[in-house]
Amino acid sequence: MEAATEIAEVGRGFYHRGWVLGTSGNFSAVVSDEPLRLAITSSSVDKGRLAAEHILQIDGSGNVLEGSGRPSAETLLHLAVVRLRDAGAVLHTHSVWSNILSDAHASEGGLAIEGFEMLKGLEGVSTHEHREWLPIIENWQDMVRLAGAVEEVLARHQEAHGFLLRRHGLYTWGKDIAEAKRHVEILEFLLEVRGRTHVALR
Amino acid sequence: MEAATEIAEVGRGFYHRGWVLGTSGNFSAVVSDEPLRLAITSSSVDKGRLAAEHILQIDGSGNVLEGSGRPSAETLLHLAVVRLRDAGAVLHTHSVWSNILSDAHASEGGLAIEGFEMLKGLEGVSTHEHREWLPIIENWQDMVRLAGAVEEVLARHQEAHGFLLRRHGLYTWGKDIAEAKRHVEILEFLLEVRGRTHVALR
Amino acid sequence: MEAATEIAEVGRGFYHRGWVLGTSGNFSAVVSDEPLRLAITSSSVDKGRLAAEHILQIDGSGNVLEGSGRPSAETLLHLAVVRLRDAGAVLHTHSVWSNILSDAHASEGGLAIEGFEMLKGLEGVSTHEHREWLPIIENWQDMVRLAGAVEEVLARHQEAHGFLLRRHGLYTWGKDIAEAKRHVEILEFLLEVRGRTHVALR
Amino acid sequence: MEAATEIAEVGRGFYHRGWVLGTSGNFSAVVSDEPLRLAITSSSVDKGRLAAEHILQIDGSGNVLEGSGRPSAETLLHLAVVRLRDAGAVLHTHSVWSNILSDAHASEGGLAIEGFEMLKGLEGVSTHEHREWLPIIENWQDMVRLAGAVEEVLARHQEAHGFLLRRHGLYTWGKDIAEAKRHVEILEFLLEVRGRTHVALR
Repeated sequence: MEAATEIAEVGRGFYHRGWVLGTSGNFSAVVSDEPLRLAITSSSVDKGRLAAEHILQIDGSGNVLEGSGRPSAETLLHLAVVRLRDAGAVLHTHSVWSNILSDAHASEGGLAIEGFEMLKGLEGVSTHEHREWLPIIENWQDMVRLAGAVEEVLARHQEAHGFLLRRHGLYTWGKDIAEAKRHVEILEFLLEVRGRTHVALR
Repeated sequence: MEAATEIAEVGRGFYHRGWVLGTSGNFSAVVSDEPLRLAITSSSVDKGRLAAEHILQIDGSGNVLEGSGRPSAETLLHLAVVRLRDAGAVLHTHSVWSNILSDAHASEGGLAIEGFEMLKGLEGVSTHEHREWLPIIENWQDMVRLAGAVEEVLARHQEAHGFLLRRHGLYTWGKDIAEAKRHVEILEFLLEVRGRTHVALR
Repeated sequence: MEAATEIAEVGRGFYHRGWVLGTSGNFSAVVSDEPLRLAITSSSVDKGRLAAEHILQIDGSGNVLEGSGRPSAETLLHLAVVRLRDAGAVLHTHSVWSNILSDAHASEGGLAIEGFEMLKGLEGVSTHEHREWLPIIENWQDMVRLAGAVEEVLARHQEAHGFLLRRHGLYTWGKDIAEAKRHVEILEFLLEVRGRTHVALR
Repeated sequence: MEAATEIAEVGRGFYHRGWVLGTSGNFSAVVSDEPLRLAITSSSVDKGRLAAEHILQIDGSGNVLEGSGRPSAETLLHLAVVRLRDAGAVLHTHSVWSNILSDAHASEGGLAIEGFEMLKGLEGVSTHEHREWLPIIENWQDMVRLAGAVEEVLARHQEAHGFLLRRHGLYTWGKDIAEAKRHVEILEFLLEVRGRTHVALR
């Protein structure tokens, strides 16, 4: 299962940057389309030791087909993104800046990032004049409710390359793991720039 | 002594994150319950070079049974946590943010962390709506006095997953080394989020 | 192609520091002077995986002579720097602080850095009393226009060791890759010092 | 030359933490006392690639006895510290926080650090109630003048474990390389805590 190896390597890289400490974060990649088969991180794994053996294979209803362990509690969100964005991979990080900014901008329902060259790292964006709206969704433990909120936001913001869960973290995706990884790096970078800007501009 | 190898690896990882620079920090794990045998870092070891040979084995009174060197000066605190929390491992870091926040909130006697998904990485916490109270204890060089203060705080705050020593650092624990390591990562992450929040929210 | 191996190693180092996340950044080195042959990073490569095979060889008009892939979109800027500064290598990073400061100081047209010992790491600077003026250039997607702006700034600021593109990043160069790498480290360091200074001085 | 290997390893470690970017920083260790022989980093070496071959051996007047290259421009400062403190090793870093704080507190002539457990990592300090006064010396390119200023400060502040050169960096030392390395980590940690404290306390 090649996807598992690639997911594990990407995950350990994020751990080293401090974007998925502890057992936080979860990652998935589509292995086949019809029927849908998703490789997804098992729940409760130390992301610093993430290995291919911690990646399960599930079907479109979240049933485990291969591997042992429980799939991530947030499997429903991954499935929603795959379905509504036709994504080949979904990556979810818990960084310091996504926690801070998702809280600071919660009342506005999202965060606009505009005017940065780095935005061109997002698929389909060809100019820094792009305005990326990163929706912020209130966090819930009820996964059916949360998946519903995610679906509604994805439908309303067709252009969005990711979203934030409040005081929780970032979700982004791509046509494959490499593209989704790039989106994580771009968005985490831009969140850090936004978060630190207040200091420099005063 | 497998615990020694695992402690050493965890310790070097914390060193790379800057949570135990110099010879700061100390780590222990229960090797047997009855009679109590604790593997614990020797005093004055460079945490960047921590190896299994720097881990001693002591009894419940702090006497060295195996290995050479003096056990950590804070052995009494480790023993208190093991006894009062039935912990299998105790980890103590000296991070920048635990130093800053333990001082900033000292007069309140603790620091509340609430509403973050990351809190679910703490054993027994199943919702971000959890409110973690991290008690802050005044720092003393008299270890008997300090151990007494720790015991009193542990008794008063049965739910706490860790505590801060003022201008000193974080103590946390778990049923085993892996759980204690996860608790360090979760709590250090949340301390960093708290410490940086002021910048972003203004 | 030795230059390719060295460029790749330098690039992965910058990735680890977070100065070229995603596919951001691009690097080049002169392989021969007459006729001009430039080794330059291919477009859209994950900088964490940059390898010698991702480095193309182009002529002075940007035509690919060796290797497969498109040369960096910013090839014209590299060629302008090579020509006007007689540079042997050109390195371009996208760091958090260069993004923040290039925006904060855009209306002044540049940023002065003065009085730091670290400035002596810039070629030809022999005292910390040096005043480095880092010009800031408005960012454009039209590369002919942007190259024109770069040429004009390089002509006007003969002493400058680098320049910033607004909300985009840093360009610097050197007589060889080692010197250009040193200039990146010196300037990124000084930008971080400048960016963080506000906090400490209040 | 064992000292050379150890110096090189310590130096690369500091480079990875960002404390000696570019060719900044210099390190030395006493190889013999009578007559004085000092192993010291050669000038202008990329600290990320520092190897034993970049370490020279000099006598007490700074003449090169072994190795090729020029000894560090700051050799006189190393010799002054060795003489006046009977040090076995001297390490000099250029960190972001030492640059910021040496400037912010220059008019007071130094910086007090007090009340932190981490201070106990400094040789001879046995309680966090210790008050460390880190003198700040104005930076000069004239090394004779600067060495004179260093000697005067070392004589006046017999207790100091290090000093800052304004907008330049930190000097500290120890009886051997291991102790000097520990002092760098302790002091850099405490400078970071001091530098970041303003944010958290407001």
